[in-house]
Amino acid sequence: MLFEIETPAVLVDLDIAEANIDRFQAYCRLHDLNCRPHIKTHKLPVLAQRQIAAGAVGITCQKVSEAEAMIADGGIDDVLLTYNVIGAGKLSRLRALAERVTLAVVADNSQVVAGLSEAFAAGGRPLSVLVECDTGAHRCGVASPAAARDLAVTISRAPGLVFKGLMTYPPVGAAAAVQAFMTEAKALCEQAGLTVSVISSGGAPDMWNAHQAPIVTEYRSGTYIYNDRSLVSRGVCQWSDCALTVLATVVSVPEAGRAIIDAGTKVLTSDLLGLQGYGHVLGRPDLMIDQLSEEHGRITAKGATGLAVGQQIRIVPNHACVVSNMVDAVYALRGDKVEGAVLVAARGKVQ
Amino acid sequence: MLFEIETPAVLVDLDIAEANIDRFQAYCRLHDLNCRPHIKTHKLPVLAQRQIAAGAVGITCQKVSEAEAMIADGGIDDVLLTYNVIGAGKLSRLRALAERVTLAVVADNSQVVAGLSEAFAAGGRPLSVLVECDTGAHRCGVASPAAARDLAVTISRAPGLVFKGLMTYPPVGAAAAVQAFMTEAKALCEQAGLTVSVISSGGAPDMWNAHQAPIVTEYRSGTYIYNDRSLVSRGVCQWSDCALTVLATVVSVPEAGRAIIDAGTKVLTSDLLGLQGYGHVLGRPDLMIDQLSEEHGRITAKGATGLAVGQQIRIVPNHACVVSNMVDAVYALRGDKVEGAVLVAARGKVQ
Repeated sequence: MLFEIETPAVLVDLDIAEANIDRFQAYCRLHDLNCRPHIKTHKLPVLAQRQIAAGAVGITCQKVSEAEAMIADGGIDDVLLTYNVIGAGKLSRLRALAERVTLAVVADNSQVVAGLSEAFAAGGRPLSVLVECDTGAHRCGVASPAAARDLAVTISRAPGLVFKGLMTYPPVGAAAAVQAFMTEAKALCEQAGLTVSVISSGGAPDMWNAHQAPIVTEYRSGTYIYNDRSLVSRGVCQWSDCALTVLATVVSVPEAGRAIIDAGTKVLTSDLLGLQGYGHVLGRPDLMIDQLSEEHGRITAKGATGLAVGQQIRIVPNHACVVSNMVDAVYALRGDKVEGAVLVAARGKVQ
Repeated sequence: MLFEIETPAVLVDLDIAEANIDRFQAYCRLHDLNCRPHIKTHKLPVLAQRQIAAGAVGITCQKVSEAEAMIADGGIDDVLLTYNVIGAGKLSRLRALAERVTLAVVADNSQVVAGLSEAFAAGGRPLSVLVECDTGAHRCGVASPAAARDLAVTISRAPGLVFKGLMTYPPVGAAAAVQAFMTEAKALCEQAGLTVSVISSGGAPDMWNAHQAPIVTEYRSGTYIYNDRSLVSRGVCQWSDCALTVLATVVSVPEAGRAIIDAGTKVLTSDLLGLQGYGHVLGRPDLMIDQLSEEHGRITAKGATGLAVGQQIRIVPNHACVVSNMVDAVYALRGDKVEGAVLVAARGKVQ
């Protein structure tokens, strides 16, 4: 079939996305976990609203500007910002955000806590703050349960702030480490007289193992709504569960074993996530997207590619989240039927 | 110094960019080469106009939508689209574009030529077409001088089209291959009664060697206006010639040897271009940006990073062109003085 859409284009099959939402929500319900989707994968208010309708307790964003874009249409009243917010401009916008939704942020150091406190001490709703903990990913996060307790105490004493709990973004396969760190940190916080009402963990690759750290009360997953080649390669889902694809056109077939498509890094990005090649051509596991430049993708095969100039192909990208960020709009489909273009409201919101 | 700009932000030093424009224009003038800058690097009409004012004969774009965005403000009346244009929607827009500017496109196969001819045969200005030749990069392009001649003949006989010349995007270090291919292709075209009025080559890494293929009449370079870490690593320029930098803030220093900044792949991208790490921290060659996620960058050092929470750093990215595509606006500077935000008019124009 030929889609009557100019290429390259990002397609989102809503039937698949909705099934993915419902499946993970059912898993969370079964294990008494709150589901708090990370909107970075879709950046679409309409899909966040669908996640809330299915039972999500709220959304996760990384940046103030993302949250602003996501709540503009209404229907979302609970946001967790899993980022150290720094600087007068962002703090001012954070304060405005806190007047509109139930808001929590994270912090992993006392300078960030001091900035948050200064911004929220003047009045208005107090801000809920979770302590970000490093359970092995070595990105942000306090390094030990004792350090988590210390920062929790600092937060609890800071004017304008309320200590709400603990948060982590663990590496894959770290359920035991999360359970151990959080159990100890929670006990230390309670010994200090604090209440730990939320323990938030996340990560799509391990989402079906979230119950293996039963101390966790809330799980943040982003990619589960679309899935992608990286999750298929990890055995987390099947190709038929991949809601986001890139529609591309073959523009050149210089030799039998090489074809060039009109999708390069400007749509597929350079993200490899440990994989070889830049995506999976649906229905053609024999093809390799072996090289990208900005506007060209090169497809090779051991024999002939069998591709012809003008032919359309659909690609499951390595990483769905970053592809959503490359385009102003995605095309919503149900199966073969195009429902229309949807603006990616939170695209490019880096601040 | 501290820039009063929310981070992450893309900064463009206009003094450096203008010096880069003038330096390469002077080189082209010295070697009697037409300079046709690729706008993919900046995507800003105001800088394309500056390139034209310095002596460029026109601009290079890859996509119809880029060209539309670049000419909207006026001041640019000559566009080469170095891409196989396919599909009714794009061809219709291409026809409209040809009424507004002096336009040429490339083709490397007869299906593309047939589509162009069908769109332009109906009347209006005829379209100039160059044959794209593969001189070793193995992306698009006809494989041999004889194939170039054959396609040139096809173009010359196609209603609505005018054969204009030959174009190539060679691999680095291929001046001799370009000279040999183009000399033979030009002779074959002339034997067939055709005039080859343009031979267009390009590529920033080899821009100072463009004169080594003297048959080339026109050179397309994009990155020379900003430069980047990849070009510094190749010895093409110095750090002080890099006009585009990413301003980032340190948001966490979990241990002495590790700091986290608020710039990840959503600004710096995952492009490695064969390098290790994701950018160069200006003034701190001892620091390594060793890992990016979407909104976080991890900086490590052999000893302590010496970075503090809240501190700003400036990063020369591996690849300037793809960074321009990640943000709605860049900040124009002259030295330490911020002149203001400039919308990236041709950002995200993938079609």
